[in-house]
Amino acid sequence: MPEHTVKAYSEELEALSSEVARMGGIAESAFSDSLAAVVRRDTRLAREVVARDEKIDEAQREIEHRAIRLMALRHPYANDLRQVLSAWRIGIDLERVGDLAKNIAKRTKVINEFDPIDLTQSIESMGKFASIQLKAVLDAYSSRDAKAAVGVWSHDEDIDRHYNALFRELLTYMMEDPRTIGPCAHLLFVAKNIERIGDHCTNIAEQVHYLVTGEELIRDRPKRGDVAAAPPAGEP
Amino acid sequence: MPEHTVKAYSEELEALSSEVARMGGIAESAFSDSLAAVVRRDTRLAREVVARDEKIDEAQREIEHRAIRLMALRHPYANDLRQVLSAWRIGIDLERVGDLAKNIAKRTKVINEFDPIDLTQSIESMGKFASIQLKAVLDAYSSRDAKAAVGVWSHDEDIDRHYNALFRELLTYMMEDPRTIGPCAHLLFVAKNIERIGDHCTNIAEQVHYLVTGEELIRDRPKRGDVAAAPPAGEP
Repeated sequence: MPEHTVKAYSEELEALSSEVARMGGIAESAFSDSLAAVVRRDTRLAREVVARDEKIDEAQREIEHRAIRLMALRHPYANDLRQVLSAWRIGIDLERVGDLAKNIAKRTKVINEFDPIDLTQSIESMGKFASIQLKAVLDAYSSRDAKAAVGVWSHDEDIDRHYNALFRELLTYMMEDPRTIGPCAHLLFVAKNIERIGDHCTNIAEQVHYLVTGEELIRDRPKRGDVAAAPPAGEP
Repeated sequence: MPEHTVKAYSEELEALSSEVARMGGIAESAFSDSLAAVVRRDTRLAREVVARDEKIDEAQREIEHRAIRLMALRHPYANDLRQVLSAWRIGIDLERVGDLAKNIAKRTKVINEFDPIDLTQSIESMGKFASIQLKAVLDAYSSRDAKAAVGVWSHDEDIDRHYNALFRELLTYMMEDPRTIGPCAHLLFVAKNIERIGDHCTNIAEQVHYLVTGEELIRDRPKRGDVAAAPPAGEP
């Protein structure tokens, strides 16, 4: 390849990577704002998060567009191909993080129509944990740090533990006071959405590991499913 | 291109397309079996569906692998590029359909530990509707029928309507008899998973439309979100 072509090529790869980092930043704020909205019962902020989701979708399309162009024109292989593929896949995961944040925000608008429920702290601490995971995995991507990615990956179980505790807590609230069933049902989904954002952090961690080392993390790490979190049959 | 290369190329494209159709078939059975498991309270079938998910994941990796190879070696463009991209993207959607079916099956195992709840018919009719959508969109893919894809796409609202009705119904059950809160919470997620399978049918329909016509369906069709389905604040 002539030198200017090589330069343009590596610049395109870098631009792709920056676009992923930029998108990561937008998804991160959307998520933390959606959490702030639910914790502070801030309907206006919730509306803002919903409106901002279009920017995240646009960023994903832009990444895909760049990735396709790179593959079509540059025929990347080995490390370069991994850069293109991981950017593409991380874009897909971040788009879903954005969707989940939007969904939390939408539910917040409904939850705020009911009387407040004293679950703020549990949601807040679970959300904070997931936010830290998201930030950590985006940092791992930017610094191409496979070890940090493995760290995020292995912490996913902690989010699941938070989720299972919250699931039980919500069910208890509903049983104690049936008037809370409506808002608690929405909070169940908020908790689930946070847990799923944790799953996407794990996916991104796998991509970072693949990008840096060329190797896949083992997919089927043991995972505590929330479906085991139901109170035993017959319990009130 | 020499003739034998052209032939091999078009055979690879066809093989990719067949792999998508095959994967679609597996995802379809997984989904209908997960529905049968929940409706018939069949824990053994639920376990089978969970175990089978690995096959769907494998199929997705195979499709991605073929798509990457085609892009790297054949540099497809125009219609060929659309074939590769749509197969890749449909593979991602089908993998999630498989995940959602697995999740329905996992929850079925828990739900079956409780006394039966008389919601079978609502779940069954919603599930049947989503199954028909999935079959229709896979047929549209196989026959490259953009009009049929638009049909699926525009019926997604009907699944949302089903879901909203079921959401309300479940909340009513929980309010009437707090002992049903545990299983109903899991059924809420079953219903949500069916609704999300409907969303993936819509995504696949968009891909079929793009594949056949080269044009995107408008993304932001008005959608009734389940978040509007809460009973008004204060309702018992």
